[in-house]
Amino acid sequence: MNVAEKTHFIEADTLIGKRIQKKDAPEKAAGKTRYIQDMVLPGQLHAKILRSARVHARIVSIDTSAAKALPGVHVVLTAADVPDQQPIGVARDHLPLKGERVRSLRDEIAAVAADSEEIAEAALKLIRVEYEDLPIISDPQDALKPGAPLIHPEPHGPDGKHLHLKPNAPIAFAGKPDNIAMQFDYTHGDIAQAEAESDVVFEDTFKLHYVTHCCMGVSGIIAEFDASGNLLMYSNTQVPFLHKREFAEYLHMDPSRIRIIQPPIGGGFGSKLDIYPFEVICIFLARAAQRPVKMVFSREEEFLASPTRQPVLLTLRSGCKKDGTLTFRQVHTLHDNGAYTSWGATTPFVMMQTFSSLYRVPACDYHTTAVYTNNPYAGSFRGYGNLQATFAIEQHMDMLAEAIQMDPLEFRLKNAQDAGEVTGQGMVFKSCGFKECLTTAAERSDYQAKHRDNIAHRGDAGPIKRGIGIASMLHVGGGAKIYPSDGCGTILKLDDFANVTLITGASEIGQGSETVLSQLVCEELGLPISAVTVVNNDTAITPWDVGVHASRTTFIAGNSAIGAAKKAKAKILAAAAKKHGCDETSLDLRGGFVIHADTGEPVVELARLMRNLHFSDKAELVMTTFYYEPPSVHQDKGFKGDVSAAYAWATQVVEVEVDTDTGIVKMTKVTGAHDVGRVLNRLGIEGQIEGGVVMGQGYALTENLIVDNGVTRNPNFRDYKLVTAPEIPEMDISFIESMDGEGPQGAKGVGEAPSICIAAAAANAIYNATGVRIFALPFTPEAVYRALRGKTPKPHWQAWRPA
Amino acid sequence: MNVAEKTHFIEADTLIGKRIQKKDAPEKAAGKTRYIQDMVLPGQLHAKILRSARVHARIVSIDTSAAKALPGVHVVLTAADVPDQQPIGVARDHLPLKGERVRSLRDEIAAVAADSEEIAEAALKLIRVEYEDLPIISDPQDALKPGAPLIHPEPHGPDGKHLHLKPNAPIAFAGKPDNIAMQFDYTHGDIAQAEAESDVVFEDTFKLHYVTHCCMGVSGIIAEFDASGNLLMYSNTQVPFLHKREFAEYLHMDPSRIRIIQPPIGGGFGSKLDIYPFEVICIFLARAAQRPVKMVFSREEEFLASPTRQPVLLTLRSGCKKDGTLTFRQVHTLHDNGAYTSWGATTPFVMMQTFSSLYRVPACDYHTTAVYTNNPYAGSFRGYGNLQATFAIEQHMDMLAEAIQMDPLEFRLKNAQDAGEVTGQGMVFKSCGFKECLTTAAERSDYQAKHRDNIAHRGDAGPIKRGIGIASMLHVGGGAKIYPSDGCGTILKLDDFANVTLITGASEIGQGSETVLSQLVCEELGLPISAVTVVNNDTAITPWDVGVHASRTTFIAGNSAIGAAKKAKAKILAAAAKKHGCDETSLDLRGGFVIHADTGEPVVELARLMRNLHFSDKAELVMTTFYYEPPSVHQDKGFKGDVSAAYAWATQVVEVEVDTDTGIVKMTKVTGAHDVGRVLNRLGIEGQIEGGVVMGQGYALTENLIVDNGVTRNPNFRDYKLVTAPEIPEMDISFIESMDGEGPQGAKGVGEAPSICIAAAAANAIYNATGVRIFALPFTPEAVYRALRGKTPKPHWQAWRPA
Repeated sequence: MNVAEKTHFIEADTLIGKRIQKKDAPEKAAGKTRYIQDMVLPGQLHAKILRSARVHARIVSIDTSAAKALPGVHVVLTAADVPDQQPIGVARDHLPLKGERVRSLRDEIAAVAADSEEIAEAALKLIRVEYEDLPIISDPQDALKPGAPLIHPEPHGPDGKHLHLKPNAPIAFAGKPDNIAMQFDYTHGDIAQAEAESDVVFEDTFKLHYVTHCCMGVSGIIAEFDASGNLLMYSNTQVPFLHKREFAEYLHMDPSRIRIIQPPIGGGFGSKLDIYPFEVICIFLARAAQRPVKMVFSREEEFLASPTRQPVLLTLRSGCKKDGTLTFRQVHTLHDNGAYTSWGATTPFVMMQTFSSLYRVPACDYHTTAVYTNNPYAGSFRGYGNLQATFAIEQHMDMLAEAIQMDPLEFRLKNAQDAGEVTGQGMVFKSCGFKECLTTAAERSDYQAKHRDNIAHRGDAGPIKRGIGIASMLHVGGGAKIYPSDGCGTILKLDDFANVTLITGASEIGQGSETVLSQLVCEELGLPISAVTVVNNDTAITPWDVGVHASRTTFIAGNSAIGAAKKAKAKILAAAAKKHGCDETSLDLRGGFVIHADTGEPVVELARLMRNLHFSDKAELVMTTFYYEPPSVHQDKGFKGDVSAAYAWATQVVEVEVDTDTGIVKMTKVTGAHDVGRVLNRLGIEGQIEGGVVMGQGYALTENLIVDNGVTRNPNFRDYKLVTAPEIPEMDISFIESMDGEGPQGAKGVGEAPSICIAAAAANAIYNATGVRIFALPFTPEAVYRALRGKTPKPHWQAWRPA
Repeated sequence: MNVAEKTHFIEADTLIGKRIQKKDAPEKAAGKTRYIQDMVLPGQLHAKILRSARVHARIVSIDTSAAKALPGVHVVLTAADVPDQQPIGVARDHLPLKGERVRSLRDEIAAVAADSEEIAEAALKLIRVEYEDLPIISDPQDALKPGAPLIHPEPHGPDGKHLHLKPNAPIAFAGKPDNIAMQFDYTHGDIAQAEAESDVVFEDTFKLHYVTHCCMGVSGIIAEFDASGNLLMYSNTQVPFLHKREFAEYLHMDPSRIRIIQPPIGGGFGSKLDIYPFEVICIFLARAAQRPVKMVFSREEEFLASPTRQPVLLTLRSGCKKDGTLTFRQVHTLHDNGAYTSWGATTPFVMMQTFSSLYRVPACDYHTTAVYTNNPYAGSFRGYGNLQATFAIEQHMDMLAEAIQMDPLEFRLKNAQDAGEVTGQGMVFKSCGFKECLTTAAERSDYQAKHRDNIAHRGDAGPIKRGIGIASMLHVGGGAKIYPSDGCGTILKLDDFANVTLITGASEIGQGSETVLSQLVCEELGLPISAVTVVNNDTAITPWDVGVHASRTTFIAGNSAIGAAKKAKAKILAAAAKKHGCDETSLDLRGGFVIHADTGEPVVELARLMRNLHFSDKAELVMTTFYYEPPSVHQDKGFKGDVSAAYAWATQVVEVEVDTDTGIVKMTKVTGAHDVGRVLNRLGIEGQIEGGVVMGQGYALTENLIVDNGVTRNPNFRDYKLVTAPEIPEMDISFIESMDGEGPQGAKGVGEAPSICIAAAAANAIYNATGVRIFALPFTPEAVYRALRGKTPKPHWQAWRPA
């Protein structure tokens, strides 16, 4: 490209909203991406963990002598070998290696580092552990019973409390140990008065089940210490900067001596926010071996020993007036915390936001309790508690509408907020496409007509009943101010060929951030997407970022990238103006050229200008830095505050065919409308939403990690049923472009949104088809078959209502 | 460290001039450093090259069918398989794979990529090449003879000229091909008049031999193309940014699609400035295999196929007046270019600087010719042509002094320049410690007394004669403006713990730049050396730098690092002043704290300030960028100009014992005085100088790559004699701190200096001991034995004097 070819002017063009191939797609499609599994470091050892054979037991003895004697074994560690180990996890209630007691079947007892995985496996088989069984608690309601055996009899922390997160929160604990891992309350408005004003009130208990992330890339880590004792980790974490600090505290090391490099990640979905025992154990092995130690899970191990979505028992009481005005929501949740506390325990905070603020709710009362059991423990998972809360709320929305004989869409529109409203919890809806989501999804799916028709045809002959259901969601779309900073740093440099290196704190975990960030930079600098190289996976190089969670990367890292690009643009235009004797305000960047903004006429090729700047007496390179911090605030002690710079909405209409003979629910179509602020990469956002819908479909219909008295019964893809390609419904996705004022080019976060209301909409669709409402997930053929025949035994959890 | 511990004040301290352990030392000492040899990429293939079995021949046929059929062989390439290959090298006279003609024994004929090195080696043995011998030219004087066979009969370049370097230089070529690779002339002053004014004139011809770099890490590269066709090279190059651009041009690729990562390098010494055939061939193999291809030389290959120091035949005519005033130097050099033109061909440009400007030289006339032969070709090598030029000049300095009966030191001091002088070639000596180098080295070695005494004892009984010799050198000490920019870029960021990431364009090749750059940053920011992580080995991340050569890194990259650190300091002090209500000009940084500059009283711990800045509403990170371009200029068409921002001097006094019975010369002591501007890392500079002295000792006494009619006879460490520990002389090194005004903390470059005058001083010492002057290197026992007995046959090269 040169000026001669650009004879007259360069037409305005934009990458925003285009379908841009993900930058990492060719490598991934060609099978050339090097995941942590593919890495080979000189002298590396392979590690395996011996896990508990019992659900709950005292460890009487561990004999590793035979394992240590096996040729090729370098290190065998038990808790006795690492007296300096500290508890990890959100509540610091979890020793990586268990020496005295195992509390769940995944518990780590010993670890081996050997010349090969095969030798390490063989060594595990030589370790003899003697147990003394303890009573098992596998039902969270049992954990609360007086005299229940204690899972963590030892007091935790200096104050005897369990949860260390959110020290400013009014979390009430007795000083003496019980099985309560966390408990707190939230309220806004006057519940008693609101219920008194209600014409209709429903109360139901909902049961949400275990699912797990099923990342295609199983968990793995490589840890090594250099000759100076610095620790390098190749890690799949989603929060490298937080982990760098946490590991430093944990290991009593100067943080400057810890470096985290993230190889390409085969799926995260929130599963990689916490520190897990295998990571700490691998570090201990590397420290003992003084060699790089690599630990990669088997698929079975991934099912057994990686976190799940938080299972919840949830009683929702909600009411409305005859005119369709929502009056109140009162909620009690009981969370199965599992044996240890990870991020799953924090899902109540997200559920609270949904209960308090999805639709206009004058009064909300929310009580949550998480209890220890001997089950697997939950982590964070795309959408957090929002899937669970939305499942309950949106069923009640349909039930309330039916009770007052109002069209479900109209009922929702009446209670949906507009831009400018502030919720009871203090969220300020600066831009809001909620109603447009509702009307768009409803219109495009012909929801109202089909909803009426399906009811009319419930009694028709034949086993197949058609149903349509609607549900909406509210989620943070501009980060979430949980940590001291929710920001992201960027360093940007241009080279002599006007190619850009974008060094960002934000990690790519498959969500397409590299591509979107490149687009945003290209939009400022008038460059093709190929001009940008993204560097984003090394704490020694990249500036700080809080990590990949809360649908924040496009918004936060995007604004950071734009900030750095704008500074670069200013430098470039100033240099061009000086060199070519123009007014810099009359110049712009487009198609690889500095142009006259009014005519599009090229002034100089950007690459040439870069070389002129560089190869001159006053040589200069264009390099800039930027740190973006969103204008959000922390919640106050009452959990109130505008925690996100923007909020995102979506409405999803699900259509199903229920085979009443077999209970099989076929999801035939999903019509979605998403307030995404603005579409940046159309291909990327379509992929993000399609993938999310399928994840929501699995949560609704097929996925179910069966935990039976503490034992995971289906740790494999044969028995744990992911949705596969033939079952994926037709999709019709609309993007509502509310052009958020703070968002990068108007965009909002959308990573979690598409999974959130599928199960709720599916429940409403099944009811629409059959007139039977089901309050427990998943809608497996067996569950639906039984429900349709009224044969579901009234489960004891349905009577649950905490005091 | 916290404020409480710092009760009163923090004492001023500095890292400058201290003995700082190299940051990479623990890894290297522990054997943990991962060189390119240690790298294993998934799917990588191993490559080997088939080299010519003849010195000069036409290739009649190549049969690779058996090699291709060998199991485990993936690719076999010959010139016929890469019709798109272009010539490489400084003069673009060198096809990586030779298809029609081989011109030296190292010539590349075919290459194999296979599953293992062993299979690749086996495949090479299966390749059948049929040759037709051509006449060999191994003596550069023969190459100039009328009717000499032409090594490159084909015309080169559009104008039929060979050398493409320095297009502005008055290089004269006939349009028709000959064996001249390069030829040019330089002059200042009136030679004829200066000779007429001379009282003494000497003319001698000096012969400089082949030596090679002997890097402990042999040459190697890994090349791979990703699924999008981007090229990633793991390369030991010293000039990654230049190579990125050159490879892009060579491969007709967008430079943005080429990334060069430099693993730790096991020695460079200038050998890695050019593109070599093995690198291009490895890229071709990777392109064909679509896999990572790794090629690492054997030690024998390293001797045969990596570049050498440029051998030279050099006639120097120089004169002085009776009062000791130097009058002129007239020089003719004939360079054995070998079969192809690499950086060795440019050593005459450096030699020219020494002839024109080492001591005050009123008139200088310099003629150089480089000719093709069938010998190995030379590259750049620490000190470039300066060792060769200084060898001649400093012998003549002694001879002239003796002829006018002046003390050699006094003669040198009379002609040594002072600060402020400008040489005939236009070098401006801004700071100049030349005379202090001379007097310091002479005094500390007791040179004058010993020099007299040794002459007096020449006739004593016994075979052992003691000698002392002096020589000085002038070299660039502030970069060398050869390329469009001689600058270096830096990006610097501080984290929440006041640890610094220094992203610099400058490569670490073992010279200790990481450590020195860290010191310079710490000096500005008042931090310990451990606070800095240096990122310096990836063109996708680091800002541009011209590369490691010309003793420039400490000076140029150092000033760049200081620039970025000063900007960071300004931001920090402004933030501290704002937060703590002080005047920022009253603050400083020291010991990890912001302090009151006048009292040393701490204001705030820097790490805490960083967190306060970061974790606030107006969150910020301290990140800065800087590009430093030295205030040097390019030479004009007459090769004149102030090409370096600073110049460095050194004087070395060498003491020897000559065993006249055996010819063995034992170097007993080296007393050096180096104008280094300022000592930054005392440990590092001592190591740099001690290593350089030993390299100079090898050049003088032991190292000799024997090339016999085009055949390298000693490609191994048994027959090629490096100096080993027991032979290393006592050293007494003084640092002259001339505190250069432009230098980083006053420092100048010193990387090449210590090797430069050892051979010259050794020649003078042998003469001092024995009264016999030897004009050819090296001073092996055989050469010295013969010279002492006058039995050196008058070699035909001594008669060489070009027309």
